[in-house]
Amino acid sequence: MEFSSKLLQKAVEEISQLPGIGKRTALRLALHLLKQPLSQSIALSESIKSLREDITFCENCHNISDNLLCEICSNPNRNKSLICVVEDIRDVMAIESTSAFKGVYHVLGGIISPMDGIGPADLTITSLIDKINNSEIKEVVFALSPSIEGDTTNFYIYKQIEKSGVKTSTIARGIAVGNEIEYVDEITLGRSILNRIPYETNISS
Amino acid sequence: MEFSSKLLQKAVEEISQLPGIGKRTALRLALHLLKQPLSQSIALSESIKSLREDITFCENCHNISDNLLCEICSNPNRNKSLICVVEDIRDVMAIESTSAFKGVYHVLGGIISPMDGIGPADLTITSLIDKINNSEIKEVVFALSPSIEGDTTNFYIYKQIEKSGVKTSTIARGIAVGNEIEYVDEITLGRSILNRIPYETNISS
Repeated sequence: MEFSSKLLQKAVEEISQLPGIGKRTALRLALHLLKQPLSQSIALSESIKSLREDITFCENCHNISDNLLCEICSNPNRNKSLICVVEDIRDVMAIESTSAFKGVYHVLGGIISPMDGIGPADLTITSLIDKINNSEIKEVVFALSPSIEGDTTNFYIYKQIEKSGVKTSTIARGIAVGNEIEYVDEITLGRSILNRIPYETNISS
Repeated sequence: MEFSSKLLQKAVEEISQLPGIGKRTALRLALHLLKQPLSQSIALSESIKSLREDITFCENCHNISDNLLCEICSNPNRNKSLICVVEDIRDVMAIESTSAFKGVYHVLGGIISPMDGIGPADLTITSLIDKINNSEIKEVVFALSPSIEGDTTNFYIYKQIEKSGVKTSTIARGIAVGNEIEYVDEITLGRSILNRIPYETNISS
């Protein structure tokens, strides 16, 4: 691709560094910005800069936050003795949108994945263990993705907190609402039969 | 979508203003930037800002340029009496990559499209007419998209330069290299039979 302007070339190169955006899409976005009012590009540019420069993470749960403690950790109505362990902030947002969880979170920042070079030291596991050993935690809920990496991370953490006597659980796995039984994979369907729940529980929830 | 950080929310809102990028993709991009080195976000932010603030357009052909005259217009080896009329800068890049055109361009900045509220006054048509009337232009090649809007724009310009005696042409329409004849639409196939060219021309090109 030959550019008649170095500025355009630089912008296209930078935009195409983003995941899922190639050179052609980047060019389309750059030309779109040129047709919009100057204020839109300035606002976009400023928000990207301040996002990266000024953002802080909650010192308790490692969620993204504008203050030292995030809104969830500083909320007196949340149950601090119930911790939900999640992979990243998107999972917090997903669970929060259900309004079904009244405890607090712990954001690991990823899951153990040797293929991607991510080990326990790259995650906030030590901080989680410290929290479990030093404060009054009653239950830890694992809400990691249902993959080999997620299960490995669950197990790694479980082995370290096993002796602390804290209750552990994982979110239920089974058939999603609206799924057709004939198309569900064998492992999920098998587990959902083995881990079947009393019919009354299903009605009340 | 509920955000735990105003900075993140602002960034997601700004990024999702871009065409083809929704809130979920914007969030994914913002979280990706947070995991990258600070320098990448700064470079992206700066390049977007300077693209919009410092970019200039060639005063002759309205192509994007870093100088008063773009590289094509200021190149003494280009034939200034041959003008190719295109919709936007992406078309210039596409034609340049063929190395088949040795003239100069005129970028309209769009095509006449009443449905989108784009009339002749929104394009650089006046500047093109002035150029044709006041300098030694021998031929104008229309390279607009083969649509009703493209044809309308072609015809609008043609009516205004008809009397100037300048030669006009459009890029050839027909069957693309690699196309299967049975799948070509009727209009294209019909035109390609009516506008058939001597076999010798095809061999030499």
